[in-house]
Amino acid sequence: MTSADPDDTGLLAPGWAGSPAARATGDTACLQALLDAEAALTRAQAALGLAPAEAASAVTEAADAGRFDVRSLAERARSGGNPVIPLVADLTKAVGDAYGPYVHRGATSQDIMDTASMLVAVRTLDLVLGDLDRTQRALARLAAEHRDTVMPGRTLTQHAVPTTFGLKAAGWRSLVLDARDRVIEVRDGLPAQLGGAAGTLAAFTAYGTQDTAALTVAFARELGLAAPLLPWHTLRTPIADLAGCLAFTAGALGKIATDVLVLGRTEIAEVAESTGGGSSAMPHKANPVRSTLIAAAARRAPQLAATLYGAMAAEDERPAGAWHAEWEPLRDLLRLVGGAARDAVELTEGLRVGSEAMREHLELTHGLIVSERLSAELAPLLGRARAKALLTDIARRTYTEDRSLGELLAEEPELKDVDLDELTDPARYTGCAGSLTDRALERR
Amino acid sequence: MTSADPDDTGLLAPGWAGSPAARATGDTACLQALLDAEAALTRAQAALGLAPAEAASAVTEAADAGRFDVRSLAERARSGGNPVIPLVADLTKAVGDAYGPYVHRGATSQDIMDTASMLVAVRTLDLVLGDLDRTQRALARLAAEHRDTVMPGRTLTQHAVPTTFGLKAAGWRSLVLDARDRVIEVRDGLPAQLGGAAGTLAAFTAYGTQDTAALTVAFARELGLAAPLLPWHTLRTPIADLAGCLAFTAGALGKIATDVLVLGRTEIAEVAESTGGGSSAMPHKANPVRSTLIAAAARRAPQLAATLYGAMAAEDERPAGAWHAEWEPLRDLLRLVGGAARDAVELTEGLRVGSEAMREHLELTHGLIVSERLSAELAPLLGRARAKALLTDIARRTYTEDRSLGELLAEEPELKDVDLDELTDPARYTGCAGSLTDRALERR
Amino acid sequence: MTSADPDDTGLLAPGWAGSPAARATGDTACLQALLDAEAALTRAQAALGLAPAEAASAVTEAADAGRFDVRSLAERARSGGNPVIPLVADLTKAVGDAYGPYVHRGATSQDIMDTASMLVAVRTLDLVLGDLDRTQRALARLAAEHRDTVMPGRTLTQHAVPTTFGLKAAGWRSLVLDARDRVIEVRDGLPAQLGGAAGTLAAFTAYGTQDTAALTVAFARELGLAAPLLPWHTLRTPIADLAGCLAFTAGALGKIATDVLVLGRTEIAEVAESTGGGSSAMPHKANPVRSTLIAAAARRAPQLAATLYGAMAAEDERPAGAWHAEWEPLRDLLRLVGGAARDAVELTEGLRVGSEAMREHLELTHGLIVSERLSAELAPLLGRARAKALLTDIARRTYTEDRSLGELLAEEPELKDVDLDELTDPARYTGCAGSLTDRALERR
Amino acid sequence: MTSADPDDTGLLAPGWAGSPAARATGDTACLQALLDAEAALTRAQAALGLAPAEAASAVTEAADAGRFDVRSLAERARSGGNPVIPLVADLTKAVGDAYGPYVHRGATSQDIMDTASMLVAVRTLDLVLGDLDRTQRALARLAAEHRDTVMPGRTLTQHAVPTTFGLKAAGWRSLVLDARDRVIEVRDGLPAQLGGAAGTLAAFTAYGTQDTAALTVAFARELGLAAPLLPWHTLRTPIADLAGCLAFTAGALGKIATDVLVLGRTEIAEVAESTGGGSSAMPHKANPVRSTLIAAAARRAPQLAATLYGAMAAEDERPAGAWHAEWEPLRDLLRLVGGAARDAVELTEGLRVGSEAMREHLELTHGLIVSERLSAELAPLLGRARAKALLTDIARRTYTEDRSLGELLAEEPELKDVDLDELTDPARYTGCAGSLTDRALERR
Repeated sequence: MTSADPDDTGLLAPGWAGSPAARATGDTACLQALLDAEAALTRAQAALGLAPAEAASAVTEAADAGRFDVRSLAERARSGGNPVIPLVADLTKAVGDAYGPYVHRGATSQDIMDTASMLVAVRTLDLVLGDLDRTQRALARLAAEHRDTVMPGRTLTQHAVPTTFGLKAAGWRSLVLDARDRVIEVRDGLPAQLGGAAGTLAAFTAYGTQDTAALTVAFARELGLAAPLLPWHTLRTPIADLAGCLAFTAGALGKIATDVLVLGRTEIAEVAESTGGGSSAMPHKANPVRSTLIAAAARRAPQLAATLYGAMAAEDERPAGAWHAEWEPLRDLLRLVGGAARDAVELTEGLRVGSEAMREHLELTHGLIVSERLSAELAPLLGRARAKALLTDIARRTYTEDRSLGELLAEEPELKDVDLDELTDPARYTGCAGSLTDRALERR
Repeated sequence: MTSADPDDTGLLAPGWAGSPAARATGDTACLQALLDAEAALTRAQAALGLAPAEAASAVTEAADAGRFDVRSLAERARSGGNPVIPLVADLTKAVGDAYGPYVHRGATSQDIMDTASMLVAVRTLDLVLGDLDRTQRALARLAAEHRDTVMPGRTLTQHAVPTTFGLKAAGWRSLVLDARDRVIEVRDGLPAQLGGAAGTLAAFTAYGTQDTAALTVAFARELGLAAPLLPWHTLRTPIADLAGCLAFTAGALGKIATDVLVLGRTEIAEVAESTGGGSSAMPHKANPVRSTLIAAAARRAPQLAATLYGAMAAEDERPAGAWHAEWEPLRDLLRLVGGAARDAVELTEGLRVGSEAMREHLELTHGLIVSERLSAELAPLLGRARAKALLTDIARRTYTEDRSLGELLAEEPELKDVDLDELTDPARYTGCAGSLTDRALERR
Repeated sequence: MTSADPDDTGLLAPGWAGSPAARATGDTACLQALLDAEAALTRAQAALGLAPAEAASAVTEAADAGRFDVRSLAERARSGGNPVIPLVADLTKAVGDAYGPYVHRGATSQDIMDTASMLVAVRTLDLVLGDLDRTQRALARLAAEHRDTVMPGRTLTQHAVPTTFGLKAAGWRSLVLDARDRVIEVRDGLPAQLGGAAGTLAAFTAYGTQDTAALTVAFARELGLAAPLLPWHTLRTPIADLAGCLAFTAGALGKIATDVLVLGRTEIAEVAESTGGGSSAMPHKANPVRSTLIAAAARRAPQLAATLYGAMAAEDERPAGAWHAEWEPLRDLLRLVGGAARDAVELTEGLRVGSEAMREHLELTHGLIVSERLSAELAPLLGRARAKALLTDIARRTYTEDRSLGELLAEEPELKDVDLDELTDPARYTGCAGSLTDRALERR
Repeated sequence: MTSADPDDTGLLAPGWAGSPAARATGDTACLQALLDAEAALTRAQAALGLAPAEAASAVTEAADAGRFDVRSLAERARSGGNPVIPLVADLTKAVGDAYGPYVHRGATSQDIMDTASMLVAVRTLDLVLGDLDRTQRALARLAAEHRDTVMPGRTLTQHAVPTTFGLKAAGWRSLVLDARDRVIEVRDGLPAQLGGAAGTLAAFTAYGTQDTAALTVAFARELGLAAPLLPWHTLRTPIADLAGCLAFTAGALGKIATDVLVLGRTEIAEVAESTGGGSSAMPHKANPVRSTLIAAAARRAPQLAATLYGAMAAEDERPAGAWHAEWEPLRDLLRLVGGAARDAVELTEGLRVGSEAMREHLELTHGLIVSERLSAELAPLLGRARAKALLTDIARRTYTEDRSLGELLAEEPELKDVDLDELTDPARYTGCAGSLTDRALERR
């Protein structure tokens, strides 16, 4: 093997390999974000007259990931525990003697690492948001189209009462919109980091900065990030907020995937992915691969988020471990969710809905799927006790005689004036599914 | 042992035993919340003319936890998998023949369980918010009082550059305010649950409800909860949001506790809890018990939140397991955070700050704690190369000769015109700690 | 509400409420274990001549949980951070002036807490092992009985190739045996804890113990625990090992539950729990409650174990938080697994297997469930290319013409000499399912 | 950016970048393991006469990771959800028409993926074991050398009673040995996977295998893995066992790192890493980087293990998501632990121990660090009540008068015959630290 061997390209990660989120979070993208942060700092200092404009240009020009050896940086990061230390050395050299001293001036490694994390996060969240939007639009179409497609409602794996596929799709969409709202709120607040060695901005003062608040604002503005009220080296609100919104999004998409996996089972086959994954040995198989990969992401995200929430308890002005434990899980979360959102687009845009199978399944319980309705409506007619006794008896007979509920009820003289067609039609016992769907679709 | 044995009173939980949050989340409180939900449902139906006013009164009067056997309910819950099933039986019986039929009319167990969870959450979050407010006020006082109390800033366990205790306390407070804001936002949106057997509200229709949206609104209003846009039986946004804000709060308080535990070590002793926990065998010991218990809560909360995020991937209209896995972790989170917030009040209101010890520790590195400043300020005077060589040499000598940085620098002829008192005084190298503190305290 | 209100009786925990494991892990049982540890310590000291025999008798007699106020202890635990501190006070008082000084002599709170945890663990694991044994025997019967019951093998939710229910049950059993083996190995090594204030056993020496190793052995023997090589106050191997074997057991039972939930779906109905949980409003429903509650436990256990593994990184001779964070998660794990094992007994002993439904489902893919076999066996006859082309064409036609694979193949002249009955019979394509089952059942 | 951008080289992972474990777990190593599994399968078939010897040679020769495009495989894996599907296509092509049909003959993707995971695990665990052995030997040396180096024992962050550094190091070593034992036990049982499409080995039969058990044994033997009793596609014991032993090892090393971080704080400085990580701006800093990175790994491992334990609840004969969720966390765990073990070697082999600082710190409590001993030994002399009163008074006075315990006790006439030098010398109150250390070092 060569020195290039240990690279990860996503061989174990079909959920995100090759995705835009993979590119936005890969080592090269992270390196570019680190360089972007360094360049923005010099530019911000130049804007405030603390560095020559030429220095800002020189650093900005040098700050191109393609010029640096990411593997070498990764390995040299081990000595000091983070990659900014060797990067500053390399960048300073690349900038040259004249303006090298303006590289990283006054900053600490964490200023650059944290700021770069926020850049990577914003860039990846933008991809996620685009895919969430396509997903919610696909779901809106499905919900509208199937507003009145009746199917069995299932609880604890068993048929309960009828529902509609429209309401199900509208519910999926509402989760996607919830995720979108949470992601946007978090993204819009992600701050640059600037604190210097221990969060007092002292070195910037030593280098002559009069108004460090202005420097922070200028730095953040260069990068399109929010300006923080305080340096947040050990006040990890942005990381925790990212953990929360990403775990939420994974869960939201995971709900959809979970339902598709159930509804697409060979025996149920009420929905199908547009392009199932094949099997070389079994030509008939069409696996629900998109749902599978989303479900896998949803299994992993909560524990990754837990690691990030746990890292909030960070001691001192920079912790020995809690900070370092954030880097990979945050990136993992971003690309897992990025990959899952990509898969969600394909899944929902291509979902095939088998209205006929849904309709047929309503009969699987011999009509008992409407027993709740009969309990409610026959009681006033027959008295509660008599209604209950009658239904219990008939429910039993549907199975022993293999006849339908409607058929057996029709033989009961007490019910000769009742509109049994109405009462026993699952399609006429969908409650407010339609109006709930309409209402949910009004949300933008 | 008697049948009463397995009760938990908090023997293993000094972090929350005996706290208001313990009471607000105990089985009796949960039972009362279940009953409150049932009574509110009947009242809401009465308000819409769907039940007699007398039924509403009868159910409301019967809905008193003291009248029910919580242990028996717990054990009978096993058969159907949730406690609402036996509770409805007992409550119906308690209400009597006349109005019993109006108990739980049209609802499903999950409507009641979820609504009760929201009630318990709101009630506990109100306690948490009260304690977070006391905590932030105590921290504001500490930050203001110690705005200019200089102490070592520490990174990766080592002295870095000076900071102030005021800035540290202001940072703690900003995390508490972040927690408060997140808790309030979540609390204010917690919705009642009303969907019927499979989320279509069909049974309510069967019982004659014309406008189920109005019923949902009336039900929520009775309980002071938000009215949901859709039934959320398997759209678990409220649970996930609770997980997020509670894990966040535990982490925010955990940061404070972690710092106090470090700063209160025997060798550091810069802060102390007001009333340390004693030891029978070691009369000199004063353990930082409040911090310890908060730290313990912060270690547990992230994984509890992970379980809740994981439960979002809930299949169908009611899942077989994911829902059931939420109940105890949500309660655990609520009372862990409730207990931690109680401890945080005591911790911060009583914290003793040893300004003198802080000051003394600034000397522990022979003055090298200001080396960053010297690097910055001597370079323009001596040239970068010479400044670096000089400082490296003198840094080494501070240890080999056991002399202070200032003393050694004063012997250098090159520096005779430099104000070394200014340059080497840690108290004059706190950067923007003061203005950052002021700014942070403006936040309300 | 009264002071008794916050007790937990398991209202939110139908998975373990009322179970033997609930009793074995409840506060009263924990209190008794603490007392057992104290009494054993005095007896061990008496056995070595370090305390009067009367003191041992007095402490042993007083060490009865029924005499102590567990709620009061829980609340007083808050001051020092653990319940042993108030308990020693109460126990000393109960023993009286004469022998009170022999209570807790030389020990630290953690000696008692940790030892009591091990007692509670051993007692609960014994219950778990009993239920795992019943479960594996039930599964052995199912596997033997259904050795040749053919059913669809399913991968990624889709029919793949045939398998047998016997092999499935044998696989479940092998997991249960793996769990049993891991639980036994851990249980047999659980050690008493004895270290004194900081793990040096110094106070025992100060009180005159010559041979502290003998004291440790005597103490452990009194309790039926292993004698540790070293005090393990911050060497948390026993806790981590418990975490591992309990998470494993939850996962093993969770696998069974997950399969039952799938196979018991209304559309599949290949298995059913013996006594499904009912629904008041829907008389036809029989919910798979045992599987549901096991599945819920399996969702929670991994994160509880994570908290325990995380607590291994405990600083110093007793940590400020990591230790305290173990108590409730360990108890939660024990009773979750205890409850799940109880449910697994009922689930497996009563499981109803629908061989006929299994057989019918083999036809759902128009016979394509044996396509793998045909690919393998026709290639040598027809050549690989021709075999593949033929099968691809016929697979398509099974769906478009709604005819079976066997029927279509029979029309192919090339295959007139092939025994298509053999080749297309799913029941004759179960590979080694039978012999694998036999082999697995040989394991004891 | 180019298509090569998203590669991960460890830029965010100074804990494992560039380590042997990184190479052993990288995508290229994983690809080679997949190829090794394919080649072993053909060889095993050849050995049983099921394939020509030339086929075995041809596949073995082609199975060289260097010949395949890992990135392309990663991206093509997305379609079917795992990389084996495109790999079989590429490998078959590489082998050529003559023997291509013997590639992957009878196997399913999971056979190859799982077997490759086990290979990667074994190879990485061997590296881990080597480093654990070096670590335990370094710790044995430290324990022996510092058998009688007295230092403060600390509980809940406060000085408690004296201990020795030898006992501490011996305790660390015992955890490392516990980890070693668990890793060896798991490694030695890791099985090959062979089950075919749904775990019945049916396709192997279809291709003519008479004795599939022999095939499994031959396959496993080719790879140096154990032969499984049953295919374990959804019986995930090996994965769960790996999760457990890896989380354990991370925790064991994390304990050492946590202690070093505390003891190396600027104010404590009882230990130091041999080569602290530097800081460009603060020349005096020597950061404990090895401990920091180990601590970071210990924070992440438990949650990664939780994901793997959670994946045990895998439905059917191959799950849709649970399996896919294992791949990256297992690899992450392996390389995190591999990196941490590498760091542990450097940390322990180079650890500098400041016996003098330890000795000095024993005085920090004015001698009260031996108060436990005085409580025990003065009671028989003075009576319990008098002894307690005296010690309480004197403890208070040590602080108010800033005098030592010994000095104040010497003024008490009651104690004139007592050997106060003995009683108040921390170095003579180390209990059984020495003999415990000796005993612990006997363990091999």
